[in-house]
Amino acid sequence: MSFLEQSFSVKFEYKIHFTKSLFHTDNPTFTDFFKSNPTDVLRKIFFVLDQGVADAHPDLVSAIRTYFDQQQEVQLIPEILIIQGGEASKNDTGLFDRLVEAVDQYGIDRHSYIAAIGGGAVLDLVGYAAAVSHRGIKHIRIPTTVLSQNDSGIGVKNGINYKGKKNFLGTFAPPAAVFNDDQFLLTLTDRDWRSGISEAVKVALIKDPRFFYWIEDNAAKLVSRDLETMDYLIVRCAELHLNHIASADPFEMGSARPLDFGHWSAHKLEQLSNFSVLHGEAVAMGIALDSTYSFLSGLLTEDKLLRILNVLLHLSFDISNPFIQINDDESPILRGLTEFQEHLGGKLTITLLTDLGTGKEVHHMDHQLLIAASNYVLNFTSATAGLDH
Amino acid sequence: MSFLEQSFSVKFEYKIHFTKSLFHTDNPTFTDFFKSNPTDVLRKIFFVLDQGVADAHPDLVSAIRTYFDQQQEVQLIPEILIIQGGEASKNDTGLFDRLVEAVDQYGIDRHSYIAAIGGGAVLDLVGYAAAVSHRGIKHIRIPTTVLSQNDSGIGVKNGINYKGKKNFLGTFAPPAAVFNDDQFLLTLTDRDWRSGISEAVKVALIKDPRFFYWIEDNAAKLVSRDLETMDYLIVRCAELHLNHIASADPFEMGSARPLDFGHWSAHKLEQLSNFSVLHGEAVAMGIALDSTYSFLSGLLTEDKLLRILNVLLHLSFDISNPFIQINDDESPILRGLTEFQEHLGGKLTITLLTDLGTGKEVHHMDHQLLIAASNYVLNFTSATAGLDH
Repeated sequence: MSFLEQSFSVKFEYKIHFTKSLFHTDNPTFTDFFKSNPTDVLRKIFFVLDQGVADAHPDLVSAIRTYFDQQQEVQLIPEILIIQGGEASKNDTGLFDRLVEAVDQYGIDRHSYIAAIGGGAVLDLVGYAAAVSHRGIKHIRIPTTVLSQNDSGIGVKNGINYKGKKNFLGTFAPPAAVFNDDQFLLTLTDRDWRSGISEAVKVALIKDPRFFYWIEDNAAKLVSRDLETMDYLIVRCAELHLNHIASADPFEMGSARPLDFGHWSAHKLEQLSNFSVLHGEAVAMGIALDSTYSFLSGLLTEDKLLRILNVLLHLSFDISNPFIQINDDESPILRGLTEFQEHLGGKLTITLLTDLGTGKEVHHMDHQLLIAASNYVLNFTSATAGLDH
Repeated sequence: MSFLEQSFSVKFEYKIHFTKSLFHTDNPTFTDFFKSNPTDVLRKIFFVLDQGVADAHPDLVSAIRTYFDQQQEVQLIPEILIIQGGEASKNDTGLFDRLVEAVDQYGIDRHSYIAAIGGGAVLDLVGYAAAVSHRGIKHIRIPTTVLSQNDSGIGVKNGINYKGKKNFLGTFAPPAAVFNDDQFLLTLTDRDWRSGISEAVKVALIKDPRFFYWIEDNAAKLVSRDLETMDYLIVRCAELHLNHIASADPFEMGSARPLDFGHWSAHKLEQLSNFSVLHGEAVAMGIALDSTYSFLSGLLTEDKLLRILNVLLHLSFDISNPFIQINDDESPILRGLTEFQEHLGGKLTITLLTDLGTGKEVHHMDHQLLIAASNYVLNFTSATAGLDH
């Protein structure tokens, strides 16, 4: 019995650019990206737009055309494809087929680019189509929501849903570049503006106490849509996410996923609500539930728990949604635990809190404690919503 | 204008095991693999078999069941899925769907395995389904042909066809392990036995002159199906392929693909013949064409070219197939150049030879020289097939 051993490392690098009015003809950011990655072959770029973004920015398509008309680095594919945004785009395999067809139709090769402008769902779908076409077309992400600018749009994952199972198909494929343009945030609804903040609360709670205090101090400004405050939140949140990805297990070969704090119930909540609850809103509820569970299981003090629940309320999150109710072993939300385990594979690994800024992994959640935690969260909301921290 | 920079490396490691009778109850190779990768969670393994292998080895399914019955490392999924082999499996998206469905149906998570037993096409299909399910189920390859044991089955690529375009969808995803069992080779047809040898000639010509001389010296034994000689050919060819993958650009982010020597025409030949010409047979013709082009363009001496053409004839390859004929700019085979460039992206990069064992990249092929090369190959065959080296 003999064997040969294969061993190699692959290096991945990309930048997340923070800018304003990316497609303004005076803004060199996008062109500079191509100039700093020179090549002697013709490169093409194919744009895919989230319908919601196209509606909110009716001049965007012509701005893109004008922007690319005035440079020689890359050839813009004349068709700019506009697709439905939101979770529905990840359920529609016809959209995936349409994207692969475009790669074929326009002769987009591995030195060319597909750029997606939109929320996390559109970026996930386009990223997946790019990752598997020709074994990987270069993909540029232009996230337009708070959630995608600080979390999903800047990482290495993509995916689509399969038979209602979230992200059942997908890959780990770092983007070629990310461009965060804060002007897209101005047209978000209040719900969309607010909902992405919960991912910042999440990463602060497991990684950075100072950032949590900063969120506490700036909750009012954030809710009142102060753009400069939001710009800081996004940069810091993105930075913490990126550092975690790079330092731990970028392609998640192990079981641990601390960045998924609060997410086992959030994923299920979204699905149970038929996605009427937004991801960020569901994450806020998930944070409330798992923080309370951390307190009830003796890991976290009650004063710290109250600071967490209060900051969520100050950020205008509704954590009293009936979907969070757990009555017994058969409560639908509990199936989220099993599905979370299945998706990660192997041993259930859940992150809880021992302090503001410190996570701890556990491999079991007690159903009785979960029932108590859900009651605590629901009662807290109704009994103390009016109290200030 | 500010930016954050993401940078990380991901390490990939796997072994290619060489064994006999992998599923004989006395053979510890497979069980040892699981023992050397211990885990505290339940692992499952789902087997997919190439119909041709199942037919040639009617006891294989029961041997697999018996083998896994006697160990506790991993749980065998009772269904063993048998699918059509050959290129047709990569054209049938229904098979891809069936595999993804099985992952869902049997709850195969990221710590579990899909094992594929078969030729390169089945390994490519199953590898792709595994790579995108849950963003990557572990994949075990058990190649059963000469071609897949020495080349396609041991590398990092997978893929399926899309609208007749070879490997249009796919990823780079290293397997968890490869098991090469030489007993599968015994039931191959003479064509399948022989055809995989051309990849060894190819890698010898661009990487290792001594291996080329060894093939010259052992051509008769190889053709007469001496298993021990074939075992050496496979190990050495696999080793050269693995070394190249690890030392160069494993996920092919650049344009160069020296391992694709002779392949631009081979891919097109397969397609033009509606896959009646096997991949390895097409590669033999592609080697003949590009070696002759190397001579005609002044890179390679004629005596070395004659050694190459003679060894192909000694290995019983038919390099006089009319598909290789190039008459003018419109000859169908020439479209292979464009398609090869499109798939790689960017600049056309073709490997030619300057010596036995030494490749050289060029970025242009002259059509007049190609016409002359194809005539040379076709005339050589008919005029000198009887001559010995």
